[in-house]
Amino acid sequence: MPVRALSQDELKKQAAWKAVEYVKSGMRLGLGTGSTAAFAVERIGSLLKDGTLKDLVAVPTSIRTYEQAKSLGIPLATLAEQPELDLAIDGADEVDPMLNVVKGRGGALLREKMVELASDKFVCIVDDTKLVEGIGGSKDAMPIEVTQFGWDYNLKRLQNLPELEGSTAKLRRDKNGEPYVTDNSNYIIDCYFENSFIKDAQKAADVLSQMVGVVEHGLFLNMVNVVIIAGSNGVEVKEKQDLLSQQGMGQA
Amino acid sequence: MPVRALSQDELKKQAAWKAVEYVKSGMRLGLGTGSTAAFAVERIGSLLKDGTLKDLVAVPTSIRTYEQAKSLGIPLATLAEQPELDLAIDGADEVDPMLNVVKGRGGALLREKMVELASDKFVCIVDDTKLVEGIGGSKDAMPIEVTQFGWDYNLKRLQNLPELEGSTAKLRRDKNGEPYVTDNSNYIIDCYFENSFIKDAQKAADVLSQMVGVVEHGLFLNMVNVVIIAGSNGVEVKEKQDLLSQQGMGQA
Repeated sequence: MPVRALSQDELKKQAAWKAVEYVKSGMRLGLGTGSTAAFAVERIGSLLKDGTLKDLVAVPTSIRTYEQAKSLGIPLATLAEQPELDLAIDGADEVDPMLNVVKGRGGALLREKMVELASDKFVCIVDDTKLVEGIGGSKDAMPIEVTQFGWDYNLKRLQNLPELEGSTAKLRRDKNGEPYVTDNSNYIIDCYFENSFIKDAQKAADVLSQMVGVVEHGLFLNMVNVVIIAGSNGVEVKEKQDLLSQQGMGQA
Repeated sequence: MPVRALSQDELKKQAAWKAVEYVKSGMRLGLGTGSTAAFAVERIGSLLKDGTLKDLVAVPTSIRTYEQAKSLGIPLATLAEQPELDLAIDGADEVDPMLNVVKGRGGALLREKMVELASDKFVCIVDDTKLVEGIGGSKDAMPIEVTQFGWDYNLKRLQNLPELEGSTAKLRRDKNGEPYVTDNSNYIIDCYFENSFIKDAQKAADVLSQMVGVVEHGLFLNMVNVVIIAGSNGVEVKEKQDLLSQQGMGQA
């Protein structure tokens, strides 16, 4: 009999459970947002309940994650209360060969980036459909959070930005056709690279950070330490440190 | 009999009227926010009404300015409709010797910066109490607009930022003691340099632009072309181009 193919949800769960192996008692955690991260939060809740893990405190990256973690009895804190975290676990929308990722299709990119930058270690969990050869390779959205004021002006500017050449910029809308509003009362402009990758992600990130009215962007560069990838052949773990060593760029 | 000293309002009006001399028929304008800018908007309205100026269109930098300009019959547009402006006129909270300015004590810094960056020429109007030897010299606020999420985390980070050394960071509150909320639904953290100037304004601006949760800051560097200063001895005009020439840095 043929082996039954695992569903995408089963793959996400496998990766999430593997990521939770990095959690040790006493840690201060950052909890991501989205369907894959939700499996990790659920797992952490179970291990706390059965006593395998103790003395955790976690900073959630969205209202949704806050509510899920609270319902599971995970002790919660704000980033001001816990400004230095040991470990963040979150999903990603795209992962490139050097473990740079795109995040924010779920709309929580600002909170996620703030929490993940505050973490010593960032473990990213994905299924193998998220692997790309270059940023933009999924042909799906690279999100940019912008203020409502001037969004249409900034849409035109983003559309014409040399650093985003080859992409089409579109205002994200909800199912009723209204502009999608983030937890921070901003809009999201999604950039789609239809026939190409982003040319220089670092340069694009620098330019976007300087743009007035751009609140944050979905390029998470040099932030991820470990990517856990679930595919039909099992779970694979990629460490940034190993990739750097292979390039002769590892730290002593 | 001694000459009667002009009130601060009369000084502001003098500077504002002088600035409006830069407005020519057919121009696309950026209209600033605050008590000094309001005198300029009022003057533009009068000159349109009496036919001295014609065919203007203006982008306001706040809801207040929008309402004032509308009531005066000044044709209005959004920045998306008029992405390239000829001239912006606005006040400032501090002006340093090289015409770098601090803005945003009125709370509209993001919209002001977006509009003024879109203008070929930016004329700044102040009374002489706004002149400082270095940014921070007024001992009054250098404002930083931050997302509500993580504001307290970012308050601590700003308080400890080497680039803002010598300043104290405080959340701006309204008259009821509640956090002040900007037109963009954000908070403002005010930095007060009590016994020093900012060390390197450009470096501070670069670091602030990169910080997650910092939406915009009140440092407007290399943006102002002309400053009009009203003082007890009359109105003085300083041009950036002249200052650069004096330093042997003028453009051909």
